[in-house]
Amino acid sequence: MRLKAKLLNIESGGTLIIVLNPKVMKELDLEPADRVRVMSEKKYAVAITDVSSAVDETEIGIFDEVKALLDVETGQPITIIPEEQPVTITSIKKKLDGIKLSEDELFELVTDIVDNRLTKAEIASFVTAVYIRGMELDETEHLTRAMAETGQMLKLGVKPVVDLHSIGGVPNNRTTMIVIPIIASAGLYIPKTASRAITDPAGTADTMEVLAPVSLGLDDIKEIVLQHHGCIVWGGSLNIAPADDLIIEIEHPLQLDPTAMLLASILAKKYAVGATDLLLEIPFGPGTKATKARANELEKKFVALGGRLGINVEVVKTDGSQPVGKGVGPILEARDVLQVLENSKDAPADLRARSLYFAGLLLEIGKKAKQGSGLKMATEILKSGKALTKFKEIIKAQGGDPELNSIDLHPGKYDETIYAEKSGTIQGIDDDSIKKIGRHLGAPYNKGAGIYLWNKVGDKVKEGEKLFTIYAESGRKLSEGLAFAETNNPFRIKT
Amino acid sequence: MRLKAKLLNIESGGTLIIVLNPKVMKELDLEPADRVRVMSEKKYAVAITDVSSAVDETEIGIFDEVKALLDVETGQPITIIPEEQPVTITSIKKKLDGIKLSEDELFELVTDIVDNRLTKAEIASFVTAVYIRGMELDETEHLTRAMAETGQMLKLGVKPVVDLHSIGGVPNNRTTMIVIPIIASAGLYIPKTASRAITDPAGTADTMEVLAPVSLGLDDIKEIVLQHHGCIVWGGSLNIAPADDLIIEIEHPLQLDPTAMLLASILAKKYAVGATDLLLEIPFGPGTKATKARANELEKKFVALGGRLGINVEVVKTDGSQPVGKGVGPILEARDVLQVLENSKDAPADLRARSLYFAGLLLEIGKKAKQGSGLKMATEILKSGKALTKFKEIIKAQGGDPELNSIDLHPGKYDETIYAEKSGTIQGIDDDSIKKIGRHLGAPYNKGAGIYLWNKVGDKVKEGEKLFTIYAESGRKLSEGLAFAETNNPFRIKT
Repeated sequence: MRLKAKLLNIESGGTLIIVLNPKVMKELDLEPADRVRVMSEKKYAVAITDVSSAVDETEIGIFDEVKALLDVETGQPITIIPEEQPVTITSIKKKLDGIKLSEDELFELVTDIVDNRLTKAEIASFVTAVYIRGMELDETEHLTRAMAETGQMLKLGVKPVVDLHSIGGVPNNRTTMIVIPIIASAGLYIPKTASRAITDPAGTADTMEVLAPVSLGLDDIKEIVLQHHGCIVWGGSLNIAPADDLIIEIEHPLQLDPTAMLLASILAKKYAVGATDLLLEIPFGPGTKATKARANELEKKFVALGGRLGINVEVVKTDGSQPVGKGVGPILEARDVLQVLENSKDAPADLRARSLYFAGLLLEIGKKAKQGSGLKMATEILKSGKALTKFKEIIKAQGGDPELNSIDLHPGKYDETIYAEKSGTIQGIDDDSIKKIGRHLGAPYNKGAGIYLWNKVGDKVKEGEKLFTIYAESGRKLSEGLAFAETNNPFRIKT
Repeated sequence: MRLKAKLLNIESGGTLIIVLNPKVMKELDLEPADRVRVMSEKKYAVAITDVSSAVDETEIGIFDEVKALLDVETGQPITIIPEEQPVTITSIKKKLDGIKLSEDELFELVTDIVDNRLTKAEIASFVTAVYIRGMELDETEHLTRAMAETGQMLKLGVKPVVDLHSIGGVPNNRTTMIVIPIIASAGLYIPKTASRAITDPAGTADTMEVLAPVSLGLDDIKEIVLQHHGCIVWGGSLNIAPADDLIIEIEHPLQLDPTAMLLASILAKKYAVGATDLLLEIPFGPGTKATKARANELEKKFVALGGRLGINVEVVKTDGSQPVGKGVGPILEARDVLQVLENSKDAPADLRARSLYFAGLLLEIGKKAKQGSGLKMATEILKSGKALTKFKEIIKAQGGDPELNSIDLHPGKYDETIYAEKSGTIQGIDDDSIKKIGRHLGAPYNKGAGIYLWNKVGDKVKEGEKLFTIYAESGRKLSEGLAFAETNNPFRIKT
């Protein structure tokens, strides 16, 4: 059936929705929430139908997400046909029954996820089945390749291409922004696609965005990396392993993270950018996603899967028991990063040390430094100012202001400081409380919101001494963060 | 936050959707597709947020389903607060890990499903986990009670209350509409809540609707059953075991039917209408949902669960290998039913025999007839015309026209007949093809659409003799049905 587009200017948050008149629904034997194939002159999408008599019989109401995919304007012709149920439902059913899926079945399943032919409930059933039944290495490999190949691939045409990744869990793990310029200075290619925060006060992409645009196209990235050896961009604006974003959207509220999906999620993205060598950080301990045993199990599996994909994976297991650096929140974390690169005396020592350690390992993995001499080389590059120069080069190439220094970065103007109620030694800083305080303050949406830690684990403090300062961009957010911080003080002090 | 309602006149097909301005979203730290609690003066609901600048900062856009629940008009005040993630996610996770759920956990989980606090993806994960992990009898009992108790309950205050149910799979299984008036004539209470077709050309509720309204309230049903002993209404218009509808909506596209869910789904509805005795038909064989072994397994489980709930369940396993009756589709099936009740010579013998058989069993179960004499009693009630009189009484009580006879019922005016291409004996009539032809013709939405079977399994036919006639309400639907019927002829003839 041929209808005229009517843009509704409504965003669903991802789900592709179109709206039809009740008579059109009846004519096509459709029920609300049924799926239809929607075609503009050149593109198509599979969307879910809502019903409204506010859309007339000649029209089709279009939500923002469908407009973006079909690239249509009000009045343009749209053809719709009811969508048959996808055959890959059978593959999902097989996995439920504990049967191994073939390469073809997994490729078709992932294609259906990317093309929006499966509902969220159907994807959830698949993810749940993988969680309970598990996947063999074979299946995980095919899932990973399918996830990469159903999206865009970055083809740099150079080797080696190194990358680093942390499976996350520690606030302000902004080592990446320091490692990239060191590695790039040494002449290795490192095209870093980073993520935004989901539950944290800032992700690497949120922090980099304080200094430069991070939503770049694949062609721009290719040009920047070939010229400057590195970049730090937001992976979400690219169409790299798009199935992964849809799967994560399902897993996240269920706090479900089947091992096979975790492996595929990370390595599909590395495979898609053409990485040959990967340094993978697995933090473990309280406040992180992993125990030590789990970290060891993951290491084995990542190395094995990497082998199948032609990616040399080296794992470094780190203690994730307290935040790294002194700032938490986009601007405060960006300031920490710049201080390290500027060799400022205010630079957080733990962030500097950890970054140099990773950079050293990567220099060895990428064969720029001999075994055991990577740290020394990384330290020289940082001290010489070459890393800062390279970082500014990358900032400029991404469209940011390379003149910005750490002293130019100021957090939100509303602040409040929390003081020690007793003297003693800081035994622990609870990551989870830190994250939640940061969110209450408005981070990462408000770039200036965040927490500055005056002291770290092991420091001795006296009663009345500063523990941390919270920053917000509005008085209301400050009150919210303060109320939460007062009842959930992240600092444990032992007298 | 307090906003003004703005009715959008859009129906989502079940999902509760509200629309907020981007500034309101930011203010509340919401992302599209996040959940919010929406409160009118007296009622509340949990809805999913869409985003649109077409809704201003003082307004909240309201989809039809939310309007129905909150009972609001444009301009009325609505308070919204972001919804925390439900704690029952933990119970879902437990089931995924194979841990048995307690009575309280199941009650809270079902309550969250009914209150829309869980997404479809979350419910799908739970259903998948139950499919893979199974449920013990204890858990199934608690699930069933929770499903009944989170909805409306019919309290007739009389005993025994009998009921009959078929787990479905055979087109035109319209025995129910004949059994009810026979049983009610004998003085037993039988409040039948029937379903509409999902994949069939007609459900009992669709067929009854040809003769009388089926969307009645619980108070009307109580009054009708206490006065006339029986009713045939659509269960979907009542709020009986509402969690079941939401679960079925998830299961259906996945063709997923975990045994525990099947048991709970059926017995929750019987428990909610206060049934004390249930005759359960389990058809088995090709074209149905069950093999004979599966039918035996189900029998045991239904009887055990019924025992826990105080419902005496008697199972009758039937051969579901061909349609029952001659008509398929709402009007054609209603005509079959009336012909049987009118003792017409045109009445389909198989439908009459099967109905009497079931009615006889129910009379024995309800202690109105001695063991072995139920069939005789049922036959007498039918032959005497008492069943017809009772049926017209029920039709009138539900608001239909009791003067309507079988000769007044005419299928769609567009028709086409398919003839035998060779002489021989009919070996089989494929249920699945019959269903699909019926749907292509427009049934059940077009009441006059359907198929009339001139011959049944075992009949001898000559080349050129009529096999079946298809009916539609439009020429286009007729062509669609014909095209499908010609390539998928349901009749197998052996020469």
